[in-house]
Amino acid sequence: MNIEIINIGDELLIGQVVNTNASWMGEQLSLEGFTVNQFTIIGDTREHILNALWKAGERSEVVLISGGIGPTKDDITKTTLCDFFGTRLVFNEEAFNDVEELFARRGYQVTELNQQQAYLPEDCISIPNKVGTARGMWFEKDIPVPGRSGKTIFVSMPGVPFEMQAMMKDHIIPELKTRFHPKSIYHKTILTQGIGESFLAKIIEEWENNLPATIRLAYLPQPGIVRLRLTGTGEDETAVRALVDKEVEKLYVLIPEYIFGADDDRLEVLVGKLLKEKKCTLGTAESCTGGYIAHLLTSVSGSSAYYKGSIIAYDNEVKEQMLGIMPETLEEFGAVSSEVVTEMAIGAQHHLNVDYVIAISGIAGPDGGSEEKPVGTTWIAIATPDEVFAKQFLFGDSRDRNIRRAALQALNMLRKNLLS
Amino acid sequence: MNIEIINIGDELLIGQVVNTNASWMGEQLSLEGFTVNQFTIIGDTREHILNALWKAGERSEVVLISGGIGPTKDDITKTTLCDFFGTRLVFNEEAFNDVEELFARRGYQVTELNQQQAYLPEDCISIPNKVGTARGMWFEKDIPVPGRSGKTIFVSMPGVPFEMQAMMKDHIIPELKTRFHPKSIYHKTILTQGIGESFLAKIIEEWENNLPATIRLAYLPQPGIVRLRLTGTGEDETAVRALVDKEVEKLYVLIPEYIFGADDDRLEVLVGKLLKEKKCTLGTAESCTGGYIAHLLTSVSGSSAYYKGSIIAYDNEVKEQMLGIMPETLEEFGAVSSEVVTEMAIGAQHHLNVDYVIAISGIAGPDGGSEEKPVGTTWIAIATPDEVFAKQFLFGDSRDRNIRRAALQALNMLRKNLLS
Repeated sequence: MNIEIINIGDELLIGQVVNTNASWMGEQLSLEGFTVNQFTIIGDTREHILNALWKAGERSEVVLISGGIGPTKDDITKTTLCDFFGTRLVFNEEAFNDVEELFARRGYQVTELNQQQAYLPEDCISIPNKVGTARGMWFEKDIPVPGRSGKTIFVSMPGVPFEMQAMMKDHIIPELKTRFHPKSIYHKTILTQGIGESFLAKIIEEWENNLPATIRLAYLPQPGIVRLRLTGTGEDETAVRALVDKEVEKLYVLIPEYIFGADDDRLEVLVGKLLKEKKCTLGTAESCTGGYIAHLLTSVSGSSAYYKGSIIAYDNEVKEQMLGIMPETLEEFGAVSSEVVTEMAIGAQHHLNVDYVIAISGIAGPDGGSEEKPVGTTWIAIATPDEVFAKQFLFGDSRDRNIRRAALQALNMLRKNLLS
Repeated sequence: MNIEIINIGDELLIGQVVNTNASWMGEQLSLEGFTVNQFTIIGDTREHILNALWKAGERSEVVLISGGIGPTKDDITKTTLCDFFGTRLVFNEEAFNDVEELFARRGYQVTELNQQQAYLPEDCISIPNKVGTARGMWFEKDIPVPGRSGKTIFVSMPGVPFEMQAMMKDHIIPELKTRFHPKSIYHKTILTQGIGESFLAKIIEEWENNLPATIRLAYLPQPGIVRLRLTGTGEDETAVRALVDKEVEKLYVLIPEYIFGADDDRLEVLVGKLLKEKKCTLGTAESCTGGYIAHLLTSVSGSSAYYKGSIIAYDNEVKEQMLGIMPETLEEFGAVSSEVVTEMAIGAQHHLNVDYVIAISGIAGPDGGSEEKPVGTTWIAIATPDEVFAKQFLFGDSRDRNIRRAALQALNMLRKNLLS
């Protein structure tokens, strides 16, 4: 069974928006054992939509469509879908009530546009949208293709990523699995921090070369993190799992110091769990990362249980006033130094009244580097109830990536300390 | 004249790589006035490549292909191209010399794989690759399409982004311009904050309905921001520009309070520029946004010129100790209140010794809401050298989006004050 994806939107064709929907859908579907054989991206025009629907339906048994619906875009896509499936728009009471409820919760008035959104093709199963106003639409149609039995499935979804994602996860993928029973597939993603892709590849080269033929390895590098995804396939789910897990165990023996978790683990969540277990509190004192560590930590729901706050001391005056850094220390060693970052950690521990502190000071770039301290130079200190220690790192020359890498490195340093 | 893009690579279909090549090519071509009517993304298989080449050639006069060539991928794509164009691979001395030279500069040895890369289809114009080893290939072929005169152009490029980009800029776009003299096109994107897509559409409905036929409007919503893109086309560049600019002016009259900028403007950059002009400093005091505003501000290179720091007072004790909030104020009004957020702003102004402060306190969710103060309730205060004012907002029920929306709202409040 082949799946094909159609993304509708002029903004995609003129490059104003990068098509992350296609890659997200492709990834989720392949993780579930489905094969995606084509993405087709077209503009909001009737002719192209009709052409793409026909061609995709001829090639594939399932066609997933995103984009082209929403309060201001409805007209072309929905009427084109009606023509393609030989149906018409009718008012859908349930869809309208959903929008009314969503808007009531948010304290908004329902507009005429929203009312129009409740008009849906008569001949489709409509899919609820818990996080937006445009419903999904599940159609089935006879496409005359030699050798194909049964109808071809077409599902239309909104193009807003989180709306499409919720619909895929809650409705579409489960329904496709029920109908098509893809091969057993098992993924395990091992997360590493603190080592680049090519160095990692060198260390695990022999292990990689000896992987069983039914297991594929993919390197998925991100700034600061390299994910190693093992994908096993086979007829028997338990056997596939066991084989992958065995290889993962070997990996833990090879690179224990770089692995921090698996699958959807996030350092900020892992650190939070450890702090909760220890009934300890955390604060941060950030310079070069400018609040990014605080942002990561507070993006975790429930983080107020252990995270008390931060002093973002971007300016040296703030370092002195709010963290009690001695002007002489700044003068003698510079803001990016073991001495200053250590004083920052101790100052924050005292002022924020917390058990643990992450303190960080570095040169994010692109300016501010020197021969002695080039862009990317970063000092990280961790204060614990028992000690303070600091370590120097040299990241790269991109501001964004330096901020991200420094934050992840700091969180992992704290995680290791909390575990020890 | 229509252009179509084909991207080849299994890694795109399984979502391992986001297809930035397509959006980059689409953007560059549309900026030059060309119309791109489809992207097709397929895997490295002969059948799909042949199918995509035929279909694209039938729909469009120019087909640009990226991916599927390079040291480890060459075989399938190049031999498939040879079959499609009825030609064969021959050794290309010039191509081989280029690779030898490039490798000599980098101090690498030429491998057998690189030697194979110098075999190119006999019947194509090969395009030099100054930054890599795989040459581009320009083919022309008769595709029988009613009404089309002349041959259809197919250009194959490597998938490595910077190699493809250099080839597009140096060779392909200039050649296409010489041959096709595209229409003049002009894009202007107006950025709004603080209003949802459907409400905005209601206000500007009449304006939208009266747009000249040569101007198209697209709504591009993101959490907290709705972008309105106007695209004008015509024969005369100056006239097209003038017509779009006139419509943009009308929009500024209609929704002045929601527009904050155009095209690639970012609120954190605009605020920074205004602060620099005024030679004023900024600090933040964040609770619910947990450092996200600080992160946005410090993501701007050079922000240390005006941004001094932040107190992330996630815990009430930190609000009292570091910002001087009175325990009675917290007790009587609660942390999410006009009174507390105002005291936070004043406290931060004093402690951080800054001219302006953004202070924010809210319930990001998913927990912590009450009937009186549901999730999404957020107070934002702005302290200026002359005054402090606070405003209440009710955002939605998603933690991530609440943080984002609150931060953008706060930055825009400050921007408006700096302008007034």
